[in-house]
Amino acid sequence: MDYEMFFRQELDGLHKEGRYRVFADLERKAGQFPRATFHGTEGPRDVTVWCSNDYLGMGQNPDVLAAMHGAIDGCGAGAGGTRNISGTNHYHVLLERELAELHGKEAALLFNSGYMSNWASLSTLASRIPGCVVVTDALNHASMIEGIRHSRADKVVFAHNDPDDLRRKLQAIDPRRPKLLAFESVYSMDGDIAPIAAFCDLAEEFGAMTYIDEVHAVGLYGPRGGGVTEREGLSHRLDVIEGTLAKGFGIMGGYIAASAATCDFIRSFASGFIFSTSLPPALAAGALASVRHLKASQTERAGQQDRVAAVRARLDAAGIPHMPNPSHIVPVMVGDPVLCKRISDELLERFDIYVQPINYPTVPRGTERLRITPSPLHADADIEALVGALAAIWGQVGLRRAA
Amino acid sequence: MDYEMFFRQELDGLHKEGRYRVFADLERKAGQFPRATFHGTEGPRDVTVWCSNDYLGMGQNPDVLAAMHGAIDGCGAGAGGTRNISGTNHYHVLLERELAELHGKEAALLFNSGYMSNWASLSTLASRIPGCVVVTDALNHASMIEGIRHSRADKVVFAHNDPDDLRRKLQAIDPRRPKLLAFESVYSMDGDIAPIAAFCDLAEEFGAMTYIDEVHAVGLYGPRGGGVTEREGLSHRLDVIEGTLAKGFGIMGGYIAASAATCDFIRSFASGFIFSTSLPPALAAGALASVRHLKASQTERAGQQDRVAAVRARLDAAGIPHMPNPSHIVPVMVGDPVLCKRISDELLERFDIYVQPINYPTVPRGTERLRITPSPLHADADIEALVGALAAIWGQVGLRRAA
Ligand SMILES: Cc1ncc(COP(=O)(O)O)c(C=O)c1O
Ligand SMILES: Cc1ncc(COP(=O)(O)O)c(C=O)c1O
Repeated sequence: MDYEMFFRQELDGLHKEGRYRVFADLERKAGQFPRATFHGTEGPRDVTVWCSNDYLGMGQNPDVLAAMHGAIDGCGAGAGGTRNISGTNHYHVLLERELAELHGKEAALLFNSGYMSNWASLSTLASRIPGCVVVTDALNHASMIEGIRHSRADKVVFAHNDPDDLRRKLQAIDPRRPKLLAFESVYSMDGDIAPIAAFCDLAEEFGAMTYIDEVHAVGLYGPRGGGVTEREGLSHRLDVIEGTLAKGFGIMGGYIAASAATCDFIRSFASGFIFSTSLPPALAAGALASVRHLKASQTERAGQQDRVAAVRARLDAAGIPHMPNPSHIVPVMVGDPVLCKRISDELLERFDIYVQPINYPTVPRGTERLRITPSPLHADADIEALVGALAAIWGQVGLRRAA
Repeated sequence: MDYEMFFRQELDGLHKEGRYRVFADLERKAGQFPRATFHGTEGPRDVTVWCSNDYLGMGQNPDVLAAMHGAIDGCGAGAGGTRNISGTNHYHVLLERELAELHGKEAALLFNSGYMSNWASLSTLASRIPGCVVVTDALNHASMIEGIRHSRADKVVFAHNDPDDLRRKLQAIDPRRPKLLAFESVYSMDGDIAPIAAFCDLAEEFGAMTYIDEVHAVGLYGPRGGGVTEREGLSHRLDVIEGTLAKGFGIMGGYIAASAATCDFIRSFASGFIFSTSLPPALAAGALASVRHLKASQTERAGQQDRVAAVRARLDAAGIPHMPNPSHIVPVMVGDPVLCKRISDELLERFDIYVQPINYPTVPRGTERLRITPSPLHADADIEALVGALAAIWGQVGLRRAA
C-alpha cells in the first residue's frame, strides 16, 4: 500500500468537494479585540474577527491576564505531571472548588479541554455503568458522539430537542436498564436551546441519569454565568454539567460539575483524565479569575446581548437572511460550501473582515453558513462595516435577500 | 438504578484494594525547582519533588517564561477558537514549523496534549486507511491503546520490544493489507528503550507504516533534543513521530511530525483535532522557546544524565533495589500497593520528600513502585536526603535490600 498516495487522494477529494480547510494565521491583539493581525501571503495586516468563541472577550480581561502572569512567576510554565503524579497544582484545587460552587454541585473535575471532558466522562460512565444505554440528542457535539462510541454501550438517538421523541425512545428501553441521557443546552451551530426542564422530567420518570453540555452557555447565561441551567433554576436537576474554560471564560480547558461520588468515580477510572499531563498553573489561575469575574459582573453578558441584537437588527434592515434563535449565535445561511468560502474570502480580502466559512462535517451539507458571534467588544462601526460588506457581496454573488 | 450508590461501591472497591488515589496539592516554585509548597491537611509546607515529568526543569527556564509573558501581553489568554474557526495563532504556525524541523519532517501538527495526539492520530489513521491492521507493542501507553480501540480496526499485539515476535505477527497478516506499526521509544514506567532500527527493518520488509511515541524522549535525547530517533539517526525511517510539549519541554500540548500529506490528512479528518479549541498563544510561544533552547543547549541534557547516574550510584551504595535501564527513569520497586503508598506517605510526612506511589492500572499489579525522575536541578544534598530517607524507611518496613 502506498500510504502517501492514499493520503493525497483523500485530500484531493476534499479539494474537489470545496471543503478543504485553510486556517487563517492570526495574532489576536490583547487590549484591541476584536482586532487581530492576519498573516496572509502578502504579509501581515489588521482584520476584525467576527467568529471567535471567546464570546465575552475574557481573553483580554485584565484580571485574567494578571492572574496568568502571577501564576507563571509563581509556579512556572507547566504543571509538571499528570494530576496523580506531581501534576496537581493548588490552582487546580481552587478552580475545581469554584466551578462546583458555580453550578451548585458538590464537586468538579478539570480536563485539558471541553472535548476531553465530554469524551472521557461519557465514555467512562457509559462503559462502566453495567448495561447502560445512552440516550443521545441527534445533534450532539462530536466529542460526545465519540465518547459514546468509545464506550461501546448501546445507544439510542432521539430527534433533536424533541421531548416527544425522547419519551418514545425511553419507553422502548427495558425499564430495568440504567440510562444516561446526554444533550446540550445551547447548540453552537444553530444557536437553539434544549427544552431542559422537559428533558429532566422525562429523565426522572424513566430513571435516567442526566448529562448536559453547557459549553456554549457557561459564563454567558445565568446571573452568575452558571449557564442556561442556572438561568432556568435547573442546575440541581442535572446529574452532570459539563463546560469549557475556552469560550465564555476565554482560556482553555474543560470540566464537569457533579456529585462528589460522580466526580471521584470519573477521576478514578477515566483514561483521558488519568494519563495526561494536567493544565498549566497559569491556565487554571486565569480561569479562576475569569469565573470569579463573571460571577460578579453583568457587564460582559449585557454587552454581548446588546451587540447580538444590534447585529440582527442591521442584518434584517439589509435583507441578509439569518437563522432566528434564542441565543447569542447569528448564523448567516449560505447553503453551498464553495460559495460560503468565496464570501469569506471576499470579506477578508476586500473588507479586512474575518468570518470563517462553516462547512461539512461541522454542519450538515447544504447548510453551509457564516457563523457570526458578536461580542461586547464589537463597536457600532464594526457592525456597520460587517453588514455593509455582506450586503455588497450578497448583491454581487446573487444570493437571495430576506423579505 | 441508584447511580450514586454504584459510584460509591466502585470507589469502596478501590479503597479496599489500596489503590484509591489521593492527589498531592502542590505549588511548584518557579526559580526554586525541585522545591514546591505542599498544601497538606495541616497547612502548607515546603517539599522536594522527585517524581515530576518536567524532566529538564524547562518549566522554570527564563526564556520560556519570558516567551509566555510576552504572548499573554501580545495576544491575550486563549486562542479564541478551534484551529479552523479563528483559533490558529501565529505561534502555532511557528511552533509547527520548528517541530517539523526538529524531527527532519516536512510538517508537524499540534494537539492539546500528548494523549490527544496519540488518540486522535492513531484512531484517524487506523479507521480511515481501508482494511488497516494495527500492530502494537504490548506495553503501549493508554492513549495509544484507546486510539486504536476507538478506530475499531483489527489489532495485533506483539510482545513488548520483541522483534522476533513482531516478525511472527507481521508474517501472519495478509500481505495485501495495510499495516500500522505503533510503539514507543522510551517506555516511561520501566525506562527501557525499543529496538527502533530492528522494528523499522521489519516494517520495511512487510510494508507497514511506522508510528513512534517519543513522549518521554523529546528534548532529552539526541544532540538537538529530537529524541531517541535523532540520537540513533533514524528519524527518516519513522513515518510519524509523536511527542509531547509537557515533559522534556516543560509546558503542555502534543504533536506529530510527519510528511506534509500525513499531517494534512490527520488535520482534515481527526475529530479530536478539529472540534476542540486550540492551545493558548502563551503555551505555543513558551513551547517554541523551549524547543529552540533545547536544540542549542546541552546543559540540561548533560545535567540530567549526571544526576541520574548519581542517584543510581547512591541507591546502589544504600542497597535500595532499582530496575536497571538505559534511560533517565529510576524505578525503585516495591511490589505491593499498600506498602508503596505507605513509603510515599512516610517520605512526605517525615522527610518532606514527595514521590507519588505508582500503582495499578498505571503499572501491572505486583510491580508497584516509586518512580524517581532526577532532573538537572536536584543537588547532591537532595540526593543524599532522598536516599537517606529511603534507607531509613526500607529498614523499618522490612523490605529486602539489593545485594
Ligand atoms: C458543544 C461543544 N462541546 C464541547 C466542545 C469542545 O470544547 P473545547 O473547545 O474546550 O475542547 C465544543 C467546541 O469546541 C462544543 O461546541
Ligand atoms: C508514552 C506516553 N504517551 C503519551 C502521554 C500523554 O502525554 P500528555 O501528558 O502530553 O498528554 C504520556 C503521559 O502522559 C505517555 O507516558
